[in-house]
Amino acid sequence: MGFGNVGQAFLRVLKEKNELCRTHYGLDIRVLSVFRSSGAFFSSQSMEIGEILEYSTFSQKSPDWKPDLKLTSVLESIEPGVLVECTPFGSQSGEPGLSHIRNALERGWHIVTANKSPLVVDFQGLCEKASKNHVELKFSGATAAALPTLDVALYSLAGTEVSRIEGILNGTTNYILTRIKEEASYDEALEEARSRGIAETDPSLDVSGWDTASKILIISNAVLETDFSLDDVRIQGIESIPSKLLNQGRKKDKALKLLGRLWRKAGEYQLEVALTVIDNSHPLFGVDGTNKGIVFFTDTMNSITVTGGKSDPIGTGAALLKDIINIYRKRF
Amino acid sequence: MGFGNVGQAFLRVLKEKNELCRTHYGLDIRVLSVFRSSGAFFSSQSMEIGEILEYSTFSQKSPDWKPDLKLTSVLESIEPGVLVECTPFGSQSGEPGLSHIRNALERGWHIVTANKSPLVVDFQGLCEKASKNHVELKFSGATAAALPTLDVALYSLAGTEVSRIEGILNGTTNYILTRIKEEASYDEALEEARSRGIAETDPSLDVSGWDTASKILIISNAVLETDFSLDDVRIQGIESIPSKLLNQGRKKDKALKLLGRLWRKAGEYQLEVALTVIDNSHPLFGVDGTNKGIVFFTDTMNSITVTGGKSDPIGTGAALLKDIINIYRKRF
Repeated sequence: MGFGNVGQAFLRVLKEKNELCRTHYGLDIRVLSVFRSSGAFFSSQSMEIGEILEYSTFSQKSPDWKPDLKLTSVLESIEPGVLVECTPFGSQSGEPGLSHIRNALERGWHIVTANKSPLVVDFQGLCEKASKNHVELKFSGATAAALPTLDVALYSLAGTEVSRIEGILNGTTNYILTRIKEEASYDEALEEARSRGIAETDPSLDVSGWDTASKILIISNAVLETDFSLDDVRIQGIESIPSKLLNQGRKKDKALKLLGRLWRKAGEYQLEVALTVIDNSHPLFGVDGTNKGIVFFTDTMNSITVTGGKSDPIGTGAALLKDIINIYRKRF
Repeated sequence: MGFGNVGQAFLRVLKEKNELCRTHYGLDIRVLSVFRSSGAFFSSQSMEIGEILEYSTFSQKSPDWKPDLKLTSVLESIEPGVLVECTPFGSQSGEPGLSHIRNALERGWHIVTANKSPLVVDFQGLCEKASKNHVELKFSGATAAALPTLDVALYSLAGTEVSRIEGILNGTTNYILTRIKEEASYDEALEEARSRGIAETDPSLDVSGWDTASKILIISNAVLETDFSLDDVRIQGIESIPSKLLNQGRKKDKALKLLGRLWRKAGEYQLEVALTVIDNSHPLFGVDGTNKGIVFFTDTMNSITVTGGKSDPIGTGAALLKDIINIYRKRF
């Protein structure tokens, strides 16, 4: 569902990895339907991924192209599998992704999504729906593309208590802040990010802190089982950087970062997105450019830091595929 | 099985986390038997962990203390559960752990272990035995205590192809190299590590590179499904550092590290442990003191780095508990 950058990148990754999925994980992944904004491909016998990608500009030539097909009729006409939701995010309502996900969960489909908006709007409701229908809802790609955040917290830190999380979760703002540290002005750095394809034409979801806030919110609700909404997050963006922070962050052994942050205070979790000057002993010092990273502070394992991960649609596509594999594979 | 530093630390972690296991993971973990070198505690009704820890010097006072009990009779007299293997490692034969693990797997017990030796000696054999008996063999704690290495590779990087792995996998040697960078001599740094309880009285398994080699070997065999033995690893230790490396490593933006390394060359994987000068753009630059870290170079997700993690018996105990939780919990 969704044939933008992420949807197409997912199909490319799947095409390249289909053989690996078969040989290594024993999974034969078939694509039965692909929805674009203008209609859908559908074949009850599975389709060649290469042909779908090729037909992206020539839909009318494909016998499987059905301009008027509805998602619900696909969900009901074939045996439930997994719906990969990749429609655009950023809407306050969580739509159109929210309805797609609800419809699919109710019909017994697993969900794998990179779309933050539905998770931001109704995290608890979607989890309950998944649980009630005995299906899985996975969203690694929504919380920093290929950087493993949720997996590490839920699987690798099982049995620990996480008291604090700090993350550089947005590549665009981190790129801009890195260039500002190197003496660029905000406007220059933003322009450069735009011209290099790092920032969107409208970068407001990134520079306002919304993207980081959504990610730390989803991580909090998923890992710490909180029930926060965006209203609970104090959000600072990078559009107007106080000159004191700017100067401190330009010092040699310091760095100015936009951190998504979560910590426990008197038994309650607090969430914020804040411009923060960190020094060179901080585990995220050195996470520059479009790189991302996250630190989990635990009791029995101390702090664990994860950094890196491809920050483009291919990285997100790889995270979507990972989630599918982890739903269907046998235990390892 | 095993009541040394790691075995006791595991019981301490379990005591503290038993309630969390119940409430959060729905797991009621009971300890039915604890083997020390001088005998074993056993009760078919489960024992108070606090009492076992207290009885460590007063075994004779416990009604559950059976000086002549054999592991196999415990394995056969109760319903199979999980054997936590924590006997000392370092033997060339893999014993005594190897026999414990084989005996338990054959009787349908899951294994969780922090003991490298049996895995180094017979990795493939143990995996086959586990698979044949439909039980799990988990060993997170054997490949760098609380630092997640295997989990990340097997779960978070599912679907990627890993072409290269580099890790600082031994805290003792990294501490010594960090102090050497700060102008200490090798002997001074080793003595300091000993007096701070970081190095063992006999540090040879660490400084010779054996420990790092064992870990990169286990990671290779587990993640890349190779069938290597220690003979396949070129191993360099830190006892005699070439002066050229010493001088380069002391430069400001460089660091001398003992890396466990694995890479693919002409379709074949190569393994080595080598003193390596890295510069400040390397993701493991800044992993100093007893800290550890690992970098996975993948195709579709680029490189992912994990650093940190408690490096003492409590960290290892937490890794053992994590493995138990991940065997028994419902999927997340």
